[in-house]
Amino acid sequence: MKAIISNAVIRRLPKYLRYLDTILANGSKKISSRDIGEAMGLTPSQIRQDLNCFGGFGQQGYGYNVEFLRDEIRKIVGVSSPKEAILIGCGNLGSAIMGSSNLNDRGFVLTDVFDVSPSVVGKSLDGFTVKHLDNIEKEFNGRAPAMAILTVPKSSVNEVFKKLVDMGIKGFWNFSGEIETDRIDIAIEDVHLEDSLMTLSYQIEQLK
Amino acid sequence: MKAIISNAVIRRLPKYLRYLDTILANGSKKISSRDIGEAMGLTPSQIRQDLNCFGGFGQQGYGYNVEFLRDEIRKIVGVSSPKEAILIGCGNLGSAIMGSSNLNDRGFVLTDVFDVSPSVVGKSLDGFTVKHLDNIEKEFNGRAPAMAILTVPKSSVNEVFKKLVDMGIKGFWNFSGEIETDRIDIAIEDVHLEDSLMTLSYQIEQLK
Repeated sequence: MKAIISNAVIRRLPKYLRYLDTILANGSKKISSRDIGEAMGLTPSQIRQDLNCFGGFGQQGYGYNVEFLRDEIRKIVGVSSPKEAILIGCGNLGSAIMGSSNLNDRGFVLTDVFDVSPSVVGKSLDGFTVKHLDNIEKEFNGRAPAMAILTVPKSSVNEVFKKLVDMGIKGFWNFSGEIETDRIDIAIEDVHLEDSLMTLSYQIEQLK
Repeated sequence: MKAIISNAVIRRLPKYLRYLDTILANGSKKISSRDIGEAMGLTPSQIRQDLNCFGGFGQQGYGYNVEFLRDEIRKIVGVSSPKEAILIGCGNLGSAIMGSSNLNDRGFVLTDVFDVSPSVVGKSLDGFTVKHLDNIEKEFNGRAPAMAILTVPKSSVNEVFKKLVDMGIKGFWNFSGEIETDRIDIAIEDVHLEDSLMTLSYQIEQLK
């Protein structure tokens, strides 16, 4: 699975999963590339191309077995083997992430949460006892979780990032603005909520 | 500005804005399509094509005036004329959005927040007094804000959406899962944080 796959295809995988989960819940057993395409706004040939990137799971004239396809994509995405995640920054956004069920069944399991503020360290939030970030190396003792969620102030994100990379963490779900790094052995998924907001602003302007 | 512009171009506009704001803050006055392209991972010709969609603001052999380009894109996105926004659902995620400065300068100004839970209605959160959703029509009295942020439980999103559409609201920033509608005169920007999470899971799997 080390073939180079375009970013556009990778970004569509979660959409396939959401769609397949929905039709599976509705009792569908088989699905054609045409039906998937219609639901996702793509041509049948684009669907076949996408799925071929991962080895192709369909048969000409038969279509795809929904459950098998769903399970194969889950394996590819890594959802079926949850990785350890920690969260840094227990403000409102951090708390929202802790409290949601988003992480479960999306490839991760949250094990620890950290902050630096005396007003929150030591407290219990959503079943987690907030630990002090200064103690994180001691806490993990040479080990590193697979992923860190960064919901820290913009001004401290690069410092926190560096500390965690030095610990050996290689995956980051980053809500805290631009991270400066040239490490290519690190996976960073930036969430720019403001981009989504500006896209909506543009769309609303077009309705006028 | 009613020309049909591809979704990919529209999604890049916020990225242009972020980049132009950064280089403007660093004192840049002029920029070539090559430099923009390098920063954004696109070819100079893609950059010129993108900006041509909006009327083209550059001169051959001269490049773009950074501030002018930034201001023109701000106008197109509608950032320079803030629209009224309300928030429904004052849980952790709603509170995070209220407390952040994301809305300001991204096309919107938050004026009111609503919830239905007795534990939060009437309370003051980040400078807003939480109002009861049942009173929203009375509150707006025939008027409608431009946009509603939906941070409500998944199970109630369609009911809340219908109520707000009936009031005349046409823009939705939706964090609450799938909205079912066939109205094409409504702009809905769905935020699927779990998609971003699964993309990261995939990327981490590839590092192994």
